[in-house]
Amino acid sequence: MDFEEKTIKREHIYQGAIIDLFLDDVLLPNGKEAKREIIKHPGAVAIAAFTNDDKMIFVKQYRKALEKVIMEIPAGKIDGTDTEPMDAAKRELEEETGYRAQSFSHETSFYTAPGFADEIIHLYRAEGLTQVENPLPQDEDEFLELVELSFEEAWAAYENQEMCDAKTTCALLLWKLRRVAESGANN
Amino acid sequence: MDFEEKTIKREHIYQGAIIDLFLDDVLLPNGKEAKREIIKHPGAVAIAAFTNDDKMIFVKQYRKALEKVIMEIPAGKIDGTDTEPMDAAKRELEEETGYRAQSFSHETSFYTAPGFADEIIHLYRAEGLTQVENPLPQDEDEFLELVELSFEEAWAAYENQEMCDAKTTCALLLWKLRRVAESGANN
Repeated sequence: MDFEEKTIKREHIYQGAIIDLFLDDVLLPNGKEAKREIIKHPGAVAIAAFTNDDKMIFVKQYRKALEKVIMEIPAGKIDGTDTEPMDAAKRELEEETGYRAQSFSHETSFYTAPGFADEIIHLYRAEGLTQVENPLPQDEDEFLELVELSFEEAWAAYENQEMCDAKTTCALLLWKLRRVAESGANN
Repeated sequence: MDFEEKTIKREHIYQGAIIDLFLDDVLLPNGKEAKREIIKHPGAVAIAAFTNDDKMIFVKQYRKALEKVIMEIPAGKIDGTDTEPMDAAKRELEEETGYRAQSFSHETSFYTAPGFADEIIHLYRAEGLTQVENPLPQDEDEFLELVELSFEEAWAAYENQEMCDAKTTCALLLWKLRRVAESGANN
């Protein structure tokens, strides 16, 4: 079955710094027409960064869309200078935390909200962290507080809903799975 | 440290069927001003629904924002008739799959894209499925294909990137964790 929704007309409603909004008239598989509201986003990276004593690094920041402070893993948008998403991951880790990592590995990638947006987040695991003496500066409109948490502390913060976004949830579930696998291997 | 970003001015750029777009001028903690682009969304539910032979139900659908078909767990927006999110979960499961469930339990909730949107997804697990004779009709602009997959089949589809959105990734990671916990308990 062919599900494709062909674009009949596209209206560019808003061009912003981070997102663009389009309104598409589409032709449905049954021949009827419908409207689709679409947010275009440059894509982003997120980093599950582990200190040498197996703590994960989180950033607390105010999210205007939510009107509250939440705790998340470090993350940021891909920009035009990035040849590949991992470049963005390295930059964002240094900017937001002041750390560089010896190893970066790709964990997973996912669309955050495919019903209305094309944003994709590439999630990396970073290990072998060293503090940079003069790290890249934070974005001038970003105010972050760093927190380093053991698995038990992070899981408690997740259960308290201090951590409550998709990328951080995925990072915590992957961390839990790895711990279970390692403890199984040690038995 | 107080991270709050106070709203100086709010412009309502677009009012749509699913999303609204606002552009806020905010006062940063350092006294400077910045712009924030914000999508308002009514919130959504998603359902990890298990058949009686322990398969999970997925829907294939065309996502205009991505211009491709992807495989996801059943999901949908909360609407004004829902007293609580679980009502939406029951309705969406029946509309999209034709199943009702004997038990619904809340798994987790997460903001999908807190950098620019307030959308929250409440993820439920549904078990004890029975097919409804005359199920609620699908939304008239939705075209879905149902797929029931074992864990191994679903995980392969995830590794192939046929499943590639945040809610489905979380549902699969939770399924994997539960299987690991159950196999540990059986040892």
